[in-house]
Amino acid sequence: MSAYDELMTFQRQTEALAQVAGRLGWDQETMMPPGAAEQRGEELGAMEEMLHARRTAPEVGQWLAAVEDSTLDAVGRAQMRHIRRNYERAVRVPAALAARIARTTSVAYGKWARARADEDFAAFAPVLSEIVALRREEAAHIAGAGDAYDALLQGYEPGATGAEVASLFDDLRPGLVALRAAVLDRPAPDPVSGSFDPAAQMVLSRRLAEVFGYDFDRGRIDKAVHPFSSGSGADVRITTRTAADDPFNCAYSTIHEVGHACYEQGIDAGYALSPLGQGVSLGVHESQSRIYENQLGRSRAFCHWLYGQMRDAFGDLGVTGEEAFYKAVNRVQRGFIRTEADEVQYNLHIMLRFDLERDMARGKLDVADLEEAWNARFAEDFGYPVDKPSNGVLQDVHWAAGLLGYFPTYALGNVYAGCLYLALQDDVADLDGQLARGDLSGATGWLHANVQRFGGLYEPRAVIEQACGFAPSEAPLLGYLEQKFADLYDL
Amino acid sequence: MSAYDELMTFQRQTEALAQVAGRLGWDQETMMPPGAAEQRGEELGAMEEMLHARRTAPEVGQWLAAVEDSTLDAVGRAQMRHIRRNYERAVRVPAALAARIARTTSVAYGKWARARADEDFAAFAPVLSEIVALRREEAAHIAGAGDAYDALLQGYEPGATGAEVASLFDDLRPGLVALRAAVLDRPAPDPVSGSFDPAAQMVLSRRLAEVFGYDFDRGRIDKAVHPFSSGSGADVRITTRTAADDPFNCAYSTIHEVGHACYEQGIDAGYALSPLGQGVSLGVHESQSRIYENQLGRSRAFCHWLYGQMRDAFGDLGVTGEEAFYKAVNRVQRGFIRTEADEVQYNLHIMLRFDLERDMARGKLDVADLEEAWNARFAEDFGYPVDKPSNGVLQDVHWAAGLLGYFPTYALGNVYAGCLYLALQDDVADLDGQLARGDLSGATGWLHANVQRFGGLYEPRAVIEQACGFAPSEAPLLGYLEQKFADLYDL
Repeated sequence: MSAYDELMTFQRQTEALAQVAGRLGWDQETMMPPGAAEQRGEELGAMEEMLHARRTAPEVGQWLAAVEDSTLDAVGRAQMRHIRRNYERAVRVPAALAARIARTTSVAYGKWARARADEDFAAFAPVLSEIVALRREEAAHIAGAGDAYDALLQGYEPGATGAEVASLFDDLRPGLVALRAAVLDRPAPDPVSGSFDPAAQMVLSRRLAEVFGYDFDRGRIDKAVHPFSSGSGADVRITTRTAADDPFNCAYSTIHEVGHACYEQGIDAGYALSPLGQGVSLGVHESQSRIYENQLGRSRAFCHWLYGQMRDAFGDLGVTGEEAFYKAVNRVQRGFIRTEADEVQYNLHIMLRFDLERDMARGKLDVADLEEAWNARFAEDFGYPVDKPSNGVLQDVHWAAGLLGYFPTYALGNVYAGCLYLALQDDVADLDGQLARGDLSGATGWLHANVQRFGGLYEPRAVIEQACGFAPSEAPLLGYLEQKFADLYDL
Repeated sequence: MSAYDELMTFQRQTEALAQVAGRLGWDQETMMPPGAAEQRGEELGAMEEMLHARRTAPEVGQWLAAVEDSTLDAVGRAQMRHIRRNYERAVRVPAALAARIARTTSVAYGKWARARADEDFAAFAPVLSEIVALRREEAAHIAGAGDAYDALLQGYEPGATGAEVASLFDDLRPGLVALRAAVLDRPAPDPVSGSFDPAAQMVLSRRLAEVFGYDFDRGRIDKAVHPFSSGSGADVRITTRTAADDPFNCAYSTIHEVGHACYEQGIDAGYALSPLGQGVSLGVHESQSRIYENQLGRSRAFCHWLYGQMRDAFGDLGVTGEEAFYKAVNRVQRGFIRTEADEVQYNLHIMLRFDLERDMARGKLDVADLEEAWNARFAEDFGYPVDKPSNGVLQDVHWAAGLLGYFPTYALGNVYAGCLYLALQDDVADLDGQLARGDLSGATGWLHANVQRFGGLYEPRAVIEQACGFAPSEAPLLGYLEQKFADLYDL
């Protein structure tokens, strides 16, 4: 066997084992008996330690050194690029440091949950300081003399830099702040109201998954407290949730996770269980979930179809008709919570977190000053003060989990979704006609052909640029939002 | 760290990883999307290869050599006994042979299923010959000059020998053959009839699991085509099935699997994720599932309580009263299939398989002659000829899966259950009164205190002997069956 074949065989087993570890996470959120939590921690720890040993195995370095790039085709070169990048990141971080990060973040979750319940940021600050210090140490190992934040960010979004993201966000913010102010100045539309049987919501959830192209032969839907998509290749499972007073929570959680899942299911089957066999970055992943959920799922045309489906499923929806339904779907409201935010405000929540975490990672903001900085920035962007830490700095679990550099990928996904939607509208004839009939095949087929099937073959930004035919920028997203909400709110 | 501590730490991780691999099997039978089967094969293969590498790791041999038995307490010595035995079995088998067995048995499953559907033993015989040859080769590596069948048997029932089992079965068979003939000579009781809503069956299944002491905080019940119990420690899951025309299938599958699960859940928590933290052998395991299902679950006293439960759940059961219900539960019928057999006939099915597989393993019976030998023996023990291979030599999957030496543990379990029931009746005051009230706590508490909590601390036969206060033999089982069925059938 050649060094390339040996490496790919080893890698294939590692990917298979990583799928097993990932499914443990799915099981934990959907099936696991409550009393199994502690044992599960040991199981996950053992899987992670085993996977870490494989990812940093000296043989991988030797095989990499022995592989001559010049003899490989484009697919082989892309495989090597991923393996080399992941290997180099992994071996630069001392095992003891990785273990300390794992231990600290596992303890931090409980401290964060208690601090949030107690509305007491000071109780969480010490462990967060420790996490920031540990991840800065990790970043220094990875980046050397380079930028610490970039090293963290690139763990989720290969090739991205904090400076580029900052510049993109700086271009996006003023337009969003202005649009938000204008929209909130207008009378708020009514929400839907009625009784939404959870079982009927789950039936509609399956129907929505089907029309958006989710393949149930290679997946399944269950309920979870926080919806997620999990797995790659032939086993990509999603979860959703139901709220008795809000049918949109289930419907749009489903469509969002179906976007993630269709990306994974749509990757060229020849890449399965290889580094190319999964979504190339969190940003590109989020572009798929967001365009499914928002540009397609919350469009006027699709809402026409959805209105009929929901009336069939639930009877009276408490709105005056189709137009009122469309407005209810796209309701913009004052609020504090990122996960509840609408299309107009969501990215403002992200930018706030990005700037603060970047400053922390680069040593420009102390955790001791984080709450004050959060509150000042929130007041500036949203125009009213944070009323309590659970509505502010303690609302998200990410930092407690050690996820610094993760937040901006959400907004990058929205920006990419804006770009893709612009290109897709050009290419898919009678898109709105299709959406109004509940036919998503034109749109999802375009995304499959231009983005999803490539998996990790191209770099994140490159796959978007190639699909669109232009360099990604904030302009398409901003233009789309301004036009949609001017129409909705008579601006 | 001492060699003992290092070994136990390594072992603990291996056990945690084995739990993960085991849960993949549960997922496959309950949750896995159909299109994921091929990928799952790779995932399981990667887990098995990784576990095999850990089980044969040279460090384990070094640690074992460094551990001084004399410095260990009884628990430590028992741990070392298990680890040494498993290590020595594992390292004696060449990796290439283990891989060939895995590949051959994975192919054999499909061939067996097709041959069974086609009623064509000749189509299955070649791959079965190969499996028998490979497992004989494996047995020779393990046993050296010792008995090949014993080496295979001891993979499931440590300490047992084919000669002992043969002698036990020889003592059991005449009594069973005679009892069976006498019972079948009497008029058959009526079965239950009616409509048994599957959802109501599952509600009753949960109720039965509860009264038999299954801990839902550390487990769950799902449906599967072939019911099983899976996992150890804090996550022990069971499955059951429902048949619309037969409420006993679900009820007694549940009670049987609860017996297995309560053994695992009842093991001293201090043994979790160690070699002592799981049932000590398949025979002892089956003793628990069988005594729950049969001696307790099919007793006249418990049937009094169950009759009320089933009438509440399903309404009319199509029987004339409680006595007819008890007779329907314990109905003995002519048949061909092991898994459908009653208490009287089940062990005859096992003995037949034991003798044939022992002869194959010892080179005394060719696979080419297996069908003829099966049919001759069946006619001898049951008094009528096998009508087709799917009712005979092709009915069970075990041999196709390479499981030679496994069958006798079922009957050993029944023999042990007979012994335990005799001892339990002496020790638990008013047992029948308790059972008639649906109170299993006296019986299951006795089994927990005398068998289940010890896990792997004592050898299989020793734990039964210790619990009973006498050496296990066939006599208690035979006495119990003769008395019960004489009463039921007016013999």
